[in-house]
Amino acid sequence: MKVRAFAAHEAGAVLQPFQYEAGPLGRLEVDVRVTHCGVCHSDLGLIDDEFGQARYPVVAGHEAVGVVEAVGADVDPADLPVGTRVGVGAIAGSCFRCEWCLRGQHQFCPERDDTVLRGSRGGFAEYVRASDWRHVYPIPDAIGSAEAAPMLCAGTTVFAQLVRHKLSPTDRVAVVGVGGLGHLALQFAAAWGCHVTAISSSRAKEDDASRFGAAEVIVGGAFDGHEQEFDFILSTVSADLPWDEYLGLLKPAGVLSVVGVPPGKIEVGAMALLPQAKTLVGGVPGSVDDTRMMLAFAARHGVRPVVETFAMAESAAALDRVRKGSARYRVVLGM
Amino acid sequence: MKVRAFAAHEAGAVLQPFQYEAGPLGRLEVDVRVTHCGVCHSDLGLIDDEFGQARYPVVAGHEAVGVVEAVGADVDPADLPVGTRVGVGAIAGSCFRCEWCLRGQHQFCPERDDTVLRGSRGGFAEYVRASDWRHVYPIPDAIGSAEAAPMLCAGTTVFAQLVRHKLSPTDRVAVVGVGGLGHLALQFAAAWGCHVTAISSSRAKEDDASRFGAAEVIVGGAFDGHEQEFDFILSTVSADLPWDEYLGLLKPAGVLSVVGVPPGKIEVGAMALLPQAKTLVGGVPGSVDDTRMMLAFAARHGVRPVVETFAMAESAAALDRVRKGSARYRVVLGM
Repeated sequence: MKVRAFAAHEAGAVLQPFQYEAGPLGRLEVDVRVTHCGVCHSDLGLIDDEFGQARYPVVAGHEAVGVVEAVGADVDPADLPVGTRVGVGAIAGSCFRCEWCLRGQHQFCPERDDTVLRGSRGGFAEYVRASDWRHVYPIPDAIGSAEAAPMLCAGTTVFAQLVRHKLSPTDRVAVVGVGGLGHLALQFAAAWGCHVTAISSSRAKEDDASRFGAAEVIVGGAFDGHEQEFDFILSTVSADLPWDEYLGLLKPAGVLSVVGVPPGKIEVGAMALLPQAKTLVGGVPGSVDDTRMMLAFAARHGVRPVVETFAMAESAAALDRVRKGSARYRVVLGM
Repeated sequence: MKVRAFAAHEAGAVLQPFQYEAGPLGRLEVDVRVTHCGVCHSDLGLIDDEFGQARYPVVAGHEAVGVVEAVGADVDPADLPVGTRVGVGAIAGSCFRCEWCLRGQHQFCPERDDTVLRGSRGGFAEYVRASDWRHVYPIPDAIGSAEAAPMLCAGTTVFAQLVRHKLSPTDRVAVVGVGGLGHLALQFAAAWGCHVTAISSSRAKEDDASRFGAAEVIVGGAFDGHEQEFDFILSTVSADLPWDEYLGLLKPAGVLSVVGVPPGKIEVGAMALLPQAKTLVGGVPGSVDDTRMMLAFAARHGVRPVVETFAMAESAAALDRVRKGSARYRVVLGM
């Protein structure tokens, strides 16, 4: 099958039409005809080769939503009928035989198929192929396709941290950053029943943060009076934070979960971490089960990203909004 | 009551006899006639004023073992009979009414009575007074008094991390440092049923580490072949480690627990922490329940510190062994 896609041919380039041959459909694979694909910061990282891993031409996109076009010979059509509206996220397959897959933690599979890193077969295309049908997620009817797209990466990444750290609805939670990930994290934590505080560098997002479920908004590092307030802090920003100050906002035994990638080293003082037994922990996209639960939970609780939708012809402008951090709050490309 | 003690009168000074008036016994208080007291690194920190908190004269000592001499009016003698052999550790009291005490996490009580920090009333003395009887621990018959002493701080500190992080006997555990804390951690983790690896800077401790329960010993940072091996790493050393290398030894979602206080900032790279969702967490002494469980578990499993016992007349030599890190493996003063 020839796939018509949109590729960057060199670092930072505008996306151009590009065709590739997908080859025959493997026994567990699924072809999805893409209708929408979210633009994540890590897509820009790939297109702009921030990680030094890009092999051009690069077809990015790992928040793809569309319709099942075909399934491999070993996929039971009852499990995933052709025509189902589905999503493909950051992980499009895993081995289902390693320690991690067998534990239900497919996100750690060393042979997992990272949609965003395989380079030339991402979701900015007419079709995206998942290497295992179990990583293809039916979208609940209640969630529109443009809105579903960002949930496949941004949504599951933040939701999985609430699951993993067993947040209680009695917890006080802070979300650092009101952006693509943050505006979903605020909604998920509020729907989870927690008392939610947004921490933002910008007063301009104060009203939005409240609308997303924040009971309180801390702007510009005004942390006075918030020491030892939070059970859980989720940092969604790609910035070097004053980490000890953030640890200081945690209650004893509190958890600072980092899902935004800071450019520099994360530096913490022993006295900020040890005496009150605090935790610094990294986050990744969720497992298959996390993602399924996330979609069901979002459908049930009305958690939705706020999206700006662009046609592929406007992809240069769309990508620039993500590059500049000016998207309100997540950019989605319509194919 | 006049208490005969041994105090440092200035930073780094040799301990000298010193008397203080303890005042009347409070309603929940307990006077313990000390027979043995362990010497912890943090005692040296106080005597040498490393933390800038010392108020001289300093009577250090927070691993005291002895016999109940008297209990306050509100202590039921059935709960703690006079004459009971008991220990008093790093925390000699807490409020039993704050959020943390009510959760059973007395180690976070903001009003807790830190034996080592109150300065002039530590365990290097004829008597030590605990401000609440519930922080006074009867010592199981199976454990000798000299051996019990280091368990009150070193023992409970390492044991509490196994409890908190819900270690499974199926886990692969590494202990960094074969010293006062480390040699107890190795024993506890082995008795817990885990596969235990010691990480030491010195080949000289290899045989001892095996004796303490290590199935394997890694010496001098020879980490090749150990990448992603451990579910849990406990760092007991007061050193600045190559933190990202240690995170690299953890399996995905593994936990690096730090109980030794490094002098510098702990620096970790986002890529060492995030993609495999690893955890860096600080540790503190255990709760009342942790300490009770630790003593029972140690008695049942034969976990014992290896101690060097000194008379108070030899305290200068004893403290020097701790200062230089040459104790094998924990120094105890006999009163």
